[in-house]
Amino acid sequence: MGTLGIICGGGAFPIVVAEAALKAGRKVFLLPIYGFAEAAAVERYPHEWIHIGAFGKLSGVLRRNGCRQVVFVGTVLRPRISRLRVDWGSLKLLPRVLGMFRGGDDHLLTSVGRIFEEHGFELVGAHQIAPDILVPPGVLGAHQPREEDIDAAHFGQEVVRALGPFDIGQGVVVGGRRILAVEAAEGTDLMLERCRDLRANGRIKLGHKSGVLVKAPKPGQDRRLDLPSIGPRTIELAAEAGLAGVAVEAGGVIAANIEDIVRIADETGLFIVGLDR
Amino acid sequence: MGTLGIICGGGAFPIVVAEAALKAGRKVFLLPIYGFAEAAAVERYPHEWIHIGAFGKLSGVLRRNGCRQVVFVGTVLRPRISRLRVDWGSLKLLPRVLGMFRGGDDHLLTSVGRIFEEHGFELVGAHQIAPDILVPPGVLGAHQPREEDIDAAHFGQEVVRALGPFDIGQGVVVGGRRILAVEAAEGTDLMLERCRDLRANGRIKLGHKSGVLVKAPKPGQDRRLDLPSIGPRTIELAAEAGLAGVAVEAGGVIAANIEDIVRIADETGLFIVGLDR
Repeated sequence: MGTLGIICGGGAFPIVVAEAALKAGRKVFLLPIYGFAEAAAVERYPHEWIHIGAFGKLSGVLRRNGCRQVVFVGTVLRPRISRLRVDWGSLKLLPRVLGMFRGGDDHLLTSVGRIFEEHGFELVGAHQIAPDILVPPGVLGAHQPREEDIDAAHFGQEVVRALGPFDIGQGVVVGGRRILAVEAAEGTDLMLERCRDLRANGRIKLGHKSGVLVKAPKPGQDRRLDLPSIGPRTIELAAEAGLAGVAVEAGGVIAANIEDIVRIADETGLFIVGLDR
Repeated sequence: MGTLGIICGGGAFPIVVAEAALKAGRKVFLLPIYGFAEAAAVERYPHEWIHIGAFGKLSGVLRRNGCRQVVFVGTVLRPRISRLRVDWGSLKLLPRVLGMFRGGDDHLLTSVGRIFEEHGFELVGAHQIAPDILVPPGVLGAHQPREEDIDAAHFGQEVVRALGPFDIGQGVVVGGRRILAVEAAEGTDLMLERCRDLRANGRIKLGHKSGVLVKAPKPGQDRRLDLPSIGPRTIELAAEAGLAGVAVEAGGVIAANIEDIVRIADETGLFIVGLDR
């Protein structure tokens, strides 16, 4: 299979994927993206920094290092088009790139994936290299969801499903049978901060320790790219928002440090559960 | 038809409805709700203050004043159940009321409407008394939407439609073909403030004067209650969020002071358009 090329955005996921590949006896080459990847982490591996949008250089580096399979992993916020460092190799792709930016994140990433494939690379999902990052089914921590929490979580799953065709966010907050917040461009953290504030100022009226954060991939999305994720901060913010717990679609949401997540959930009294699709 | 009973929440709509009824030669009796209705405005009309939840008193007042037809109009935020002033007349309704609070706003209001009808009152929509509050079709101000704005607006309408079964908000913000924000419990104003902030901090990357606020009623909602509304503040916040304009479903969204709204839109360079359903 040759060396695995890992295009690295921010956060812990790129390193988890690199370690999983090494452990499986595979060589890796990291391509950290300026402005997103964390220098301290990638320095330990063979790597070469790239600018976002510089597809010409990117594909050259991948080829020179024998990477036919590529993983694209870690946080990359949508760049402003004017900030893309378009190089000669990607200039002819530019009209297509501009079109990609007209839609949602999923549309954008799927298009990026297609460009890779047309250039002879195979795009692989982070979870295919490091299956342990997929949140498993069932209750993960010490706290059990109540029946009404599971009911709320299923209701939230339905909403994510209904929003699928519109390529919106992958998260909602449900209190009882009421949708309190829907995630779009702001992301999960800001959505949870909003719920915390709406509760503090009385706009959302719910007893403490009620309400559920639900995260699930969009139906029909390319799961090799941009699976929704949870991290320790997700649980902390869910606790600050007074929620009862966090429900994710099992096998469809990734977590880089599930032990930390479960520990924080146990400490803050929240449940974490992986739901069937 | 007898005297029109007007249960008054906050804002300008109750007075607009009262004036429209008087102009049509009909007597009115106002029932301002403590904590929501504005005292200065209602004092000019025959009225009696009521507590939210005190249905026993409410129906007594309506009967004594010969009101068989009732309008429920103006802003009323969901009360905390523990704050409801349940009186003897509504005590037996309590189990039902608790059930009502489990769902979204639409569920809540529809249930309230049903209780009125079971007690012999006829619930009438504010727009049936004051049809002028419905936003008409077509471009309302001096600024014309571009073709891509209308395209974005239709995309937003589709999202509101898809969210209908879940009884979520009635507003979204669309940039190009990308949904930037979905309104739930926070309401339109906070959603627009969020877009303004996300743009200011670079999380949403769009040129200035692009993006559209779309408001439309939920499909299947009881239009006698809680039609979405826009006001001068909506336009001000849309302008602060850098949007190109505001699109609403013509005949499905209400505005108390459309002249003010159009003036502010003209001054801030935004379009306002009433879309076909």
